[in-house]
Amino acid sequence: MLTVEELKTFFKRDRFVDNLGVEIIELTPEKAVTKVAVHEGMFNATGTVQGGMLYTLADFTFATLANYLHPITVTQTGNISYVRPAKTAWLTATAKETLRAKHTCISEVVIQDADGEIVCVSHFNGFVKDVAKEDVK
Amino acid sequence: MLTVEELKTFFKRDRFVDNLGVEIIELTPEKAVTKVAVHEGMFNATGTVQGGMLYTLADFTFATLANYLHPITVTQTGNISYVRPAKTAWLTATAKETLRAKHTCISEVVIQDADGEIVCVSHFNGFVKDVAKEDVK
Amino acid sequence: MLTVEELKTFFKRDRFVDNLGVEIIELTPEKAVTKVAVHEGMFNATGTVQGGMLYTLADFTFATLANYLHPITVTQTGNISYVRPAKTAWLTATAKETLRAKHTCISEVVIQDADGEIVCVSHFNGFVKDVAKEDVK
Amino acid sequence: MLTVEELKTFFKRDRFVDNLGVEIIELTPEKAVTKVAVHEGMFNATGTVQGGMLYTLADFTFATLANYLHPITVTQTGNISYVRPAKTAWLTATAKETLRAKHTCISEVVIQDADGEIVCVSHFNGFVKDVAKEDVK
Repeated sequence: MLTVEELKTFFKRDRFVDNLGVEIIELTPEKAVTKVAVHEGMFNATGTVQGGMLYTLADFTFATLANYLHPITVTQTGNISYVRPAKTAWLTATAKETLRAKHTCISEVVIQDADGEIVCVSHFNGFVKDVAKEDVK
Repeated sequence: MLTVEELKTFFKRDRFVDNLGVEIIELTPEKAVTKVAVHEGMFNATGTVQGGMLYTLADFTFATLANYLHPITVTQTGNISYVRPAKTAWLTATAKETLRAKHTCISEVVIQDADGEIVCVSHFNGFVKDVAKEDVK
Repeated sequence: MLTVEELKTFFKRDRFVDNLGVEIIELTPEKAVTKVAVHEGMFNATGTVQGGMLYTLADFTFATLANYLHPITVTQTGNISYVRPAKTAWLTATAKETLRAKHTCISEVVIQDADGEIVCVSHFNGFVKDVAKEDVK
Repeated sequence: MLTVEELKTFFKRDRFVDNLGVEIIELTPEKAVTKVAVHEGMFNATGTVQGGMLYTLADFTFATLANYLHPITVTQTGNISYVRPAKTAWLTATAKETLRAKHTCISEVVIQDADGEIVCVSHFNGFVKDVAKEDVK
């Protein structure tokens, strides 16, 4: 198992996410929580946070939890449902794992705006590459 | 129905996508094709194109086709399956519509690398906001 | 809000599910739990419970919770990930709601075998038809 | 590669589907088409074809195509979007493969009613178990 600092160092190398200014603010075996300050560079044509930006935040939060629990895990599939436009000054994303079975892990990630309202709900299936490595952690 | 130029002007205002340098290279009632030059700012920690970047490209290509066919359409749900790492100098995404029924449209978007290999397959459900407007197009 | 008995009476009319012998064993605002005895008529060609049967159980459990909380709700989209073959004498499914916002509700449904092992994880988006009716409950 | 007759014999052993009376009416490398006569035992509480029944039909049609092209393939994930109630005397489902890459195949399955209207759209990811076997076909 990586320490939280090792994981943060690893993800610093995710240039796409790092450029967005996403921060890991909580990381335990139970959940990962990230936060991002919203700026205009994240907006779509209607002036709210772009759907791909929201997906990226959700996927990164999943990757943070999954790689903390089972290094190395890569995303196999993701799905997202948008329920409200995201317009507040910052957003948080919370990932919780539903299942881990052999090479598969599944998490739910919920993004909330600064008022606590849910903006989107997403689910990710990860492929845990090295099951043996995890077991000797 | 918007003209292709009107649509391009509209999407110029999508700051998140516009910053990524995505170009609409084909747009007909049958399909939308976009292209993006890959650069290091799009990489994840393992040096291939980040999954959120790929989702963003797919979603934008869907939005292009859907808003061309039925303005105004917003993404309700999206899903994506990653099948190969994306490492080539550029990527293209092709969206085709499977269904339109009242307020719902569904498209499949396939992203290919510069060698023509499929990198990911995604599906989007859109909500067509103004059905009446579309009918008088 | 329907009473549990009214809901059970309503779902008795779901012939497809009723024929399968699915029972509602717990129903509260927090969760719905159903149970089904496995028999050979539910098997696929490899002698484990057929994937469509598992999906049906999950969807019904979602429908039970969603219609208890917000009558009338219909399934808009569903997704399911299969993680283990289902071979035990009975299965249970547990639905919990992640979100309700205007006309949309989203739940996660987990199916477990008689040993408590997770067999599949699924998510459903429902369309809450009559928001006004719910609000005067 | 199995012959169509071998595949039909194999799927005869899928008791859950066989009981529903689903027939394979076309099977080529390009697509699988199945048909089922609707009867009251397939109805939900509102008197239209139950969502789990529709999913089962879609998944079976995917399995038919996938196992014809790459025996043996099992469903890993499935998703479905319901767009119209299914009320006609029979339904057909058509599966087409979007992608095959190593152990993964992805298909889209569309169910249409007797009037040709699309009832639901679904996507399945399969895990191709024995890649070597397929290659020596």
